Amino acid sequence: MTRPGSDIRLDIDRLRRTGDPEVVLALHKTPEQTVASLRGLARSHPDRAVLATRCDEATRAECQGAFPAAWIDDVAGTVVVGPLPQPDGTVAVVTAGTSDLPVAREAVVTTQVFGASAVLVADVGVAGLHRLLAELDTFAAADAIVAVAGADGAMPGVIAGLVGVPVIAVPTSVGYGTGLGGIAALLTMLNACAPGVSVVNIDNGFGAAVCAARIARRPAHRP
Amino acid sequence: MTRPGSDIRLDIDRLRRTGDPEVVLALHKTPEQTVASLRGLARSHPDRAVLATRCDEATRAECQGAFPAAWIDDVAGTVVVGPLPQPDGTVAVVTAGTSDLPVAREAVVTTQVFGASAVLVADVGVAGLHRLLAELDTFAAADAIVAVAGADGAMPGVIAGLVGVPVIAVPTSVGYGTGLGGIAALLTMLNACAPGVSVVNIDNGFGAAVCAARIARRPAHRP
Amino acid sequence: MTRPGSDIRLDIDRLRRTGDPEVVLALHKTPEQTVASLRGLARSHPDRAVLATRCDEATRAECQGAFPAAWIDDVAGTVVVGPLPQPDGTVAVVTAGTSDLPVAREAVVTTQVFGASAVLVADVGVAGLHRLLAELDTFAAADAIVAVAGADGAMPGVIAGLVGVPVIAVPTSVGYGTGLGGIAALLTMLNACAPGVSVVNIDNGFGAAVCAARIARRPAHRP
Amino acid sequence: MTRPGSDIRLDIDRLRRTGDPEVVLALHKTPEQTVASLRGLARSHPDRAVLATRCDEATRAECQGAFPAAWIDDVAGTVVVGPLPQPDGTVAVVTAGTSDLPVAREAVVTTQVFGASAVLVADVGVAGLHRLLAELDTFAAADAIVAVAGADGAMPGVIAGLVGVPVIAVPTSVGYGTGLGGIAALLTMLNACAPGVSVVNIDNGFGAAVCAARIARRPAHRP
Amino acid sequence: MTRPGSDIRLDIDRLRRTGDPEVVLALHKTPEQTVASLRGLARSHPDRAVLATRCDEATRAECQGAFPAAWIDDVAGTVVVGPLPQPDGTVAVVTAGTSDLPVAREAVVTTQVFGASAVLVADVGVAGLHRLLAELDTFAAADAIVAVAGADGAMPGVIAGLVGVPVIAVPTSVGYGTGLGGIAALLTMLNACAPGVSVVNIDNGFGAAVCAARIARRPAHRP
Amino acid sequence: MTRPGSDIRLDIDRLRRTGDPEVVLALHKTPEQTVASLRGLARSHPDRAVLATRCDEATRAECQGAFPAAWIDDVAGTVVVGPLPQPDGTVAVVTAGTSDLPVAREAVVTTQVFGASAVLVADVGVAGLHRLLAELDTFAAADAIVAVAGADGAMPGVIAGLVGVPVIAVPTSVGYGTGLGGIAALLTMLNACAPGVSVVNIDNGFGAAVCAARIARRPAHRP
Amino acid sequence: MTRPGSDIRLDIDRLRRTGDPEVVLALHKTPEQTVASLRGLARSHPDRAVLATRCDEATRAECQGAFPAAWIDDVAGTVVVGPLPQPDGTVAVVTAGTSDLPVAREAVVTTQVFGASAVLVADVGVAGLHRLLAELDTFAAADAIVAVAGADGAMPGVIAGLVGVPVIAVPTSVGYGTGLGGIAALLTMLNACAPGVSVVNIDNGFGAAVCAARIARRPAHRP
Amino acid sequence: MTRPGSDIRLDIDRLRRTGDPEVVLALHKTPEQTVASLRGLARSHPDRAVLATRCDEATRAECQGAFPAAWIDDVAGTVVVGPLPQPDGTVAVVTAGTSDLPVAREAVVTTQVFGASAVLVADVGVAGLHRLLAELDTFAAADAIVAVAGADGAMPGVIAGLVGVPVIAVPTSVGYGTGLGGIAALLTMLNACAPGVSVVNIDNGFGAAVCAARIARRPAHRP
Repeated sequence: MTRPGSDIRLDIDRLRRTGDPEVVLALHKTPEQTVASLRGLARSHPDRAVLATRCDEATRAECQGAFPAAWIDDVAGTVVVGPLPQPDGTVAVVTAGTSDLPVAREAVVTTQVFGASAVLVADVGVAGLHRLLAELDTFAAADAIVAVAGADGAMPGVIAGLVGVPVIAVPTSVGYGTGLGGIAALLTMLNACAPGVSVVNIDNGFGAAVCAARIARRPAHRP
Repeated sequence: MTRPGSDIRLDIDRLRRTGDPEVVLALHKTPEQTVASLRGLARSHPDRAVLATRCDEATRAECQGAFPAAWIDDVAGTVVVGPLPQPDGTVAVVTAGTSDLPVAREAVVTTQVFGASAVLVADVGVAGLHRLLAELDTFAAADAIVAVAGADGAMPGVIAGLVGVPVIAVPTSVGYGTGLGGIAALLTMLNACAPGVSVVNIDNGFGAAVCAARIARRPAHRP
Repeated sequence: MTRPGSDIRLDIDRLRRTGDPEVVLALHKTPEQTVASLRGLARSHPDRAVLATRCDEATRAECQGAFPAAWIDDVAGTVVVGPLPQPDGTVAVVTAGTSDLPVAREAVVTTQVFGASAVLVADVGVAGLHRLLAELDTFAAADAIVAVAGADGAMPGVIAGLVGVPVIAVPTSVGYGTGLGGIAALLTMLNACAPGVSVVNIDNGFGAAVCAARIARRPAHRP
Repeated sequence: MTRPGSDIRLDIDRLRRTGDPEVVLALHKTPEQTVASLRGLARSHPDRAVLATRCDEATRAECQGAFPAAWIDDVAGTVVVGPLPQPDGTVAVVTAGTSDLPVAREAVVTTQVFGASAVLVADVGVAGLHRLLAELDTFAAADAIVAVAGADGAMPGVIAGLVGVPVIAVPTSVGYGTGLGGIAALLTMLNACAPGVSVVNIDNGFGAAVCAARIARRPAHRP
Repeated sequence: MTRPGSDIRLDIDRLRRTGDPEVVLALHKTPEQTVASLRGLARSHPDRAVLATRCDEATRAECQGAFPAAWIDDVAGTVVVGPLPQPDGTVAVVTAGTSDLPVAREAVVTTQVFGASAVLVADVGVAGLHRLLAELDTFAAADAIVAVAGADGAMPGVIAGLVGVPVIAVPTSVGYGTGLGGIAALLTMLNACAPGVSVVNIDNGFGAAVCAARIARRPAHRP
Repeated sequence: MTRPGSDIRLDIDRLRRTGDPEVVLALHKTPEQTVASLRGLARSHPDRAVLATRCDEATRAECQGAFPAAWIDDVAGTVVVGPLPQPDGTVAVVTAGTSDLPVAREAVVTTQVFGASAVLVADVGVAGLHRLLAELDTFAAADAIVAVAGADGAMPGVIAGLVGVPVIAVPTSVGYGTGLGGIAALLTMLNACAPGVSVVNIDNGFGAAVCAARIARRPAHRP
Repeated sequence: MTRPGSDIRLDIDRLRRTGDPEVVLALHKTPEQTVASLRGLARSHPDRAVLATRCDEATRAECQGAFPAAWIDDVAGTVVVGPLPQPDGTVAVVTAGTSDLPVAREAVVTTQVFGASAVLVADVGVAGLHRLLAELDTFAAADAIVAVAGADGAMPGVIAGLVGVPVIAVPTSVGYGTGLGGIAALLTMLNACAPGVSVVNIDNGFGAAVCAARIARRPAHRP
Repeated sequence: MTRPGSDIRLDIDRLRRTGDPEVVLALHKTPEQTVASLRGLARSHPDRAVLATRCDEATRAECQGAFPAAWIDDVAGTVVVGPLPQPDGTVAVVTAGTSDLPVAREAVVTTQVFGASAVLVADVGVAGLHRLLAELDTFAAADAIVAVAGADGAMPGVIAGLVGVPVIAVPTSVGYGTGLGGIAALLTMLNACAPGVSVVNIDNGFGAAVCAARIARRPAHRP
């Protein structure tokens, strides 16, 4: 009754349509499914890196065996197979606290796979404003800023009020109680007093980096 | 079947128990009910101001007629009948934007009725940090800070990270959409990265001022 | 007790810090407050347009009298005082349905005040895919896309899967029942299957346009 | 005090009333309770398949031992005891991503137990529209479509705008953060711009299939 | 900057794709916008009725003037222009209480415009089960049931347990307090103990009727 | 297509089944619909009072004209037509504040229509415990207590910890902000530390009184 | 700094105040804490049973060792130490499905400890109405009904429409997805179309039984 | 691409700015990260205690090894390294039930690290009012009260109505079902009928104690 072979259907046309590489979201997948998907994508795009995100320890181990040359980041939970593209433009990835690092590193890896450079600025939450103010030059020099924050999520709005660079805010599930798993930070960011902030899903360092890389690499697509 | 006279029952013992004056919340009450309650309280406490909050235009007009000597604040929506107490200690009432003024003024009036001095610092939201930083001395000199903010509600946490004074944060319903009528600001404040912030109900300038005045006037109750 | 003159405090330094012009959010303000704020900002920035958003009919009338040369858009609810800047780059503002026009026009006006060109593409919701597919060239040619949609909010994600341009999605409060005043569309956008979508507050055409204009005009700030 | 024997009370009359077979929801039940319920139902309906859903590994093992001839689907988590009815009409079960397969397979099995044929079309989410458009003929030929999607849940509405077949949408808990365990997909489906979509509980492939089978087999009940 | 003429873009191809007629949702539209849309659709489909829903009093009056021959239902808030199609199959529209009638009548009108017959059964809520049980024959004879209920929304599930006909449940905003504007009824329906129930948006009699009509008229599309 | 006369269907058998009289919920109904329903019920139950609740000013006026002998309570928004039954047992209706009176009076009227006596104890919220403690004898003497409170809703739980009488708690929508229209009070009551509290819908004085009257009049139904 | 001995403070006066026995909620407590509390209560009330609820397996084992004569119910998770009181009146405990049994048995045990008889009627959910209708005599004969249901929670309202006995409804967390851990059932019960239903916290069989026992044993406290 | 050394950035200036000591939130951190942070802070503040909160068993063990002289509280989950400051003023930490002790002890430890004395009053929930009333003298003598309560969260409001001391309320996640992990208690506290209550995040004994210590030690900062 089920048509044979219809269970997996790869989207191998994304690069031509959008300029973006192919990606596998390993969440909810078995290690074997992730390896199979990565292998299919890598085969059809041998000259450009493909990416798997949200890889848990078992999946990373399975990938290590299947793709010995892969670039595997244990903190980010990412696996990259194939050569990185030449970077174009720069994305600043900023975190409020050390617990936001997994999400930030997912953004750092993704930015590079999607064609831009990344610089990581960690631990500049608004509870100690002087740390943030010391990095204004880095922020102003970036093509886009990925601002990662949990708890009150106030940092992206403060940055957007200080520099004219587009800010992609990533709420994280860091916090407890009324943090509501990142909902509190999300709402803060959506209501940021300073304009220039847009927001992605909770813990979605990947999605923010795609937005930022599309911004950073844009001039390269122009005459 | 209903016992005669049981419909209104004033709490005329609060002052002795808590040192706080008597108050009428005019919200949900008719102008006549508010005047009747104020009159009853003023009669039993002739030597100390009593307060009505959330008085709409009709209620303020009714009060103006009933108590010609009352102090009526149209922005705050407050009516004060009777002499203010001698102030003890100082409360800084701070707002993020001009739309927060009604709540802030309710706090300014309440602070004085409850026995402390109030200083109002307006329009120092985090979208323009320099305005906030210019007022640090005022914040540090206060016994307590009532910090009033809508939208992202980020300001109270920033202040609490800069000075060691207790901050009572008041989320306001200023905003729209995902501001959720003040819920977004409330959550931000409850999750403030800097400790030293406690929070009251949305738009509850009155409640914040009671907390702040209890703090500010405290030494007066000591030997 | 209240410090004289402290009730209004304009942020007149934003242009230098961020390259963004000054803006007044008229929501929650009286017509007089809006005119006063606009006048103050226009005086300190005579050579660059300043903007007021969310102006209801009374506020627009008051502005018409105060600034006869202002550009007033009745559908957008915007008032612009002063000369528009030279545009740099192009933003495509896209709507799913005709009821999304007020938000889309706010984005169109804001984009121009913030220094980029805007092209409006209306009525291309996913219920009739052929209308959307007919505009792919316009989408691909833009520096950034502001995608405005209520109800199911599915359109921005479909666009982001078709072109490699950064998409700023604006959920609108168009809909009823479980649309939850725009929350349903917001959630759809935050969970868009195609990456490259970031989101702003419900009905916040202004905020989306600021993000988009920062992207579009970026090369002008480079060596 | 408790009446003996009252703890289990099977509904053995459903087939006569509704034409539907008997079903056991194994969720919250022990393996023993599920086997006992299945045995009771199978005994009173020896000529028609009975079904257990949401069977975890332990329950499936227990059933395997108790009913060696049962049809057990490990991905769907279903156990079928007894002969399938003659199918009448066809249901297309469609998924947006590979992670939606357990729910989709529950729908495929249920459809057959409830008297219709099922065809499974997997991995046709809207992030790659061309995959979806390639299956339009399959959709148009079905009597009903069960459309299974997590994350943004946009796919069922796009299908309903392309063909005139009734669409039963099943939101899945696939996703994270603001996906809210399937609530985001549910809201998208309830607010689908194209009419013709109705919705069942999150992950409820069973319920959707019952609706679809009632539609598909309907003509058989007519004169 | 805005492309001329792009503000209104009608979908005039729906009938060919889906067999469904064209519809205008008047909610959020001005009376003039609704009349203009209806006129455009009627012109391109002169031989088949087109429908406007959620028409308030002003819109109905404007339509009355523009289309003197229109079928206007004041309780349903609907306007129908053009000849009804030949009906195929029967839909039973059932309400729990008299306050659900506007939604039910919207369903009755829509069913007919979309090509099926409708029978209305009112006031059979579960608080008086005998009224419901008296209508079982009507329910069993229908091709589909649109079950409209507010407050606890329990009625559709009870019906689905009694007959084998597909039930499309419509939660209404009738109720107060924890009814949450129809959310309580929606959740009840999504969790109905008896399978065979699918659900549409709150107060969406239109959407339910489209689903039901697609079911009822289906055999006509078969060889 | 609609069956004539099916629009209104009265439940005239409730008294025999449950011992409860007939009731009309006027909310969402026109004054004419309410009068028509009351008339139908009164005609079939001439010897026992029938009740309409949630009657706004227009409905009460219409009822006054239609039933000159009716007992109309303007604060409760109730209309009673026909003779009250002989009371059996006593219900204490208690309020936390004066703003809770409309709900409390609805309970007082309903209690009597449903066959028990009612005593009203107003203004005994927990902010002034001494007022509550002064009424303990009244509470202990009742067969059931209907405890009406908004804001924090703490009062019913305190009463249930002091006397062994069943407490039916009614949350009211009195309050603002995080009171969430009565949801905060509802949650407090559902989580009352002292057992013996059960809860009804927000502002549902009617429903609480039905529960209480069923308790109070119970012995009358025994041998 | 901490006052010695202040960590545990038993309420040993409840029986005199309310007629209710003493109870320990074992949830969130260690087995040792529960045994210590039970021992203290049993010592001060040697002639009347004391109860512990929500006892997990470890706690029940610890209690078994400490109180060899205790009545321990593994399904209910309850431990009773000391002699049951003479029952007065009868409570019917009714469940919709077999998964609701743990909550129902907690109610059965609690009812007896609090002084009334209990009869358990299981598996009479509304998906099979005939099972429910077969028990009407049992319902009508009870002094109070504890109605336990998860999923759609429709059963208590149907019962309250059939008999005039007070119904205490207990929503259970049985279900999934939009069942929201019992919130859906809770809302259904709060909005029950038939009056006479009051509600307790999710899975709170204990609390419902206390309400019911207070009702059932009431006449015994009268002259 | 990542700047070396930027991963950890300690805020070592807090003491000078605010008078507050340095703190590490161990939640979401590895034991090694917590020890590293504590070591850095202790090194820069050798003469004043530094604090780590939310330390699980593994983290406490790691700290025990790294700082043999540390003050480790297993119930509170806190680690204190370095000498406590001289206390100034007194904070009363009050709990409703024994399950609130971990949060209360976190508050007791924090109060002392932040420079005030703490007295713990346990088990005085409102279900047994006499226990609460017996402690009024202790409450009145404190400079601030930290009131810790789960379930209905009613206790802080009752205390604030009895004494004039500022109350910082801490909702705890103790409870189940509609307790919503502490949200119910939070809402109760935000809506407390008696003014003088402010609130912190759920289970945030630390944050409440910082507010309270800032209040209690305040006079020491005055001339």
